[in-house]
Amino acid sequence: MKIEGRNAVLELLKTEKTVDKIEIARGAEKACGRIFAMAREKGIRVQFADNKALDRESETGRHQGVIAFVSDYEYAEFDELLQKKDGPRFVIVCDGVEDVHNLGSILRVAECAGADGAVIPKNKSAQVTGAVVRISEGAANHLKVARVPGVNFAIDKLKESGYWVYGLEADGEDIYQCDLTGDIVLVIGGEDSGLSALTRKKCDKIVSLPLKGQVNSLNASVALGIAAYEAVRQRR
Amino acid sequence: MKIEGRNAVLELLKTEKTVDKIEIARGAEKACGRIFAMAREKGIRVQFADNKALDRESETGRHQGVIAFVSDYEYAEFDELLQKKDGPRFVIVCDGVEDVHNLGSILRVAECAGADGAVIPKNKSAQVTGAVVRISEGAANHLKVARVPGVNFAIDKLKESGYWVYGLEADGEDIYQCDLTGDIVLVIGGEDSGLSALTRKKCDKIVSLPLKGQVNSLNASVALGIAAYEAVRQRR
Repeated sequence: MKIEGRNAVLELLKTEKTVDKIEIARGAEKACGRIFAMAREKGIRVQFADNKALDRESETGRHQGVIAFVSDYEYAEFDELLQKKDGPRFVIVCDGVEDVHNLGSILRVAECAGADGAVIPKNKSAQVTGAVVRISEGAANHLKVARVPGVNFAIDKLKESGYWVYGLEADGEDIYQCDLTGDIVLVIGGEDSGLSALTRKKCDKIVSLPLKGQVNSLNASVALGIAAYEAVRQRR
Repeated sequence: MKIEGRNAVLELLKTEKTVDKIEIARGAEKACGRIFAMAREKGIRVQFADNKALDRESETGRHQGVIAFVSDYEYAEFDELLQKKDGPRFVIVCDGVEDVHNLGSILRVAECAGADGAVIPKNKSAQVTGAVVRISEGAANHLKVARVPGVNFAIDKLKESGYWVYGLEADGEDIYQCDLTGDIVLVIGGEDSGLSALTRKKCDKIVSLPLKGQVNSLNASVALGIAAYEAVRQRR
């Protein structure tokens, strides 16, 4: 897998992930100075190449002069999310988020809000590719992302483990009236389809954000950000 | 200007904007049934054309079988944002947001959170094009967007008018400790550069969101969404 762009590579270097090599474009040495220093410190091979060579290697077209080559994304085991910990637990479940930009943004928001992990299904969902890692600004490497055969089974397991499961959709209870201080799961639906009927049914509660204007929905990652930060606020 | 995509055209039809004509692709008649009915009711000319013709007309490449042709985006007068109203006022100022996706997302969030308007500078900023309207899901047509020669002068005027001006950036005061119940302005900076030094100085206060993970920033529209909805919460 390729991780592209300065921020994403820097975030990658802060993790324990195995990096095979890093390519830096000639001319971008200065801008990539910190990356070079960190790579040397960790004993990672650094190659310098023409910017055009990086253009050819690039999957996203936005490498900013640096590409890191790593083994495929290492998904977490779903069971890790069932373990108890000090303080309230917090998991995001993506129910059919198919757009890589949305998935990347969701993982970034989840990590910033201090979620313990995210769950995505193996089918009908974007997977964690190099592009998703880049869009997440490297957050995907800091967050436990578990891949499951189906989200409904995962939700059952999370409920058994003591989580309270909130589905985020337009016609639910006002989120500001909900207690988000315990172990919680926030379930977010696909771009067009929203939550599937069965998933919706499995949620302990459907919660919504107030919409004060004419437009009848927020972007998925923005809605998740607002909901996740309401949990952050309540937990302090 | 062209407005493309079903949601964006529907939202357009809910406004008082003058629509010159609407093109619907053959085969998309059913999916565009509501648009067709609303257009007829408003006396707007509807043409049916091959999907390929719409592909050629499309600026975004994502027309979903419908394109509306309208006069150029009508910016609001900045002075409208200085008028008093019942209840607290709420304005978003974009200080050099150059990416059309970010500007579209910001306008969508602003409208959903019930902001009265947004301010963008004439230079070094994305402008409200058809693509921005589409990305905003039509929110740009419901929101007053004023275009000013420079944001600093606009901030001075807003302060004189009684607004309290908050700049959103990484190293400020905790937003959850701030009173957002009065007339407020939220200032959001450019993607890479953040707030300019002078703009930062002009803000009454710099406010930040807590970051609980390793990644050191949120996407601009997500950050604005969280901050704007904290204002929504406090104002109830």
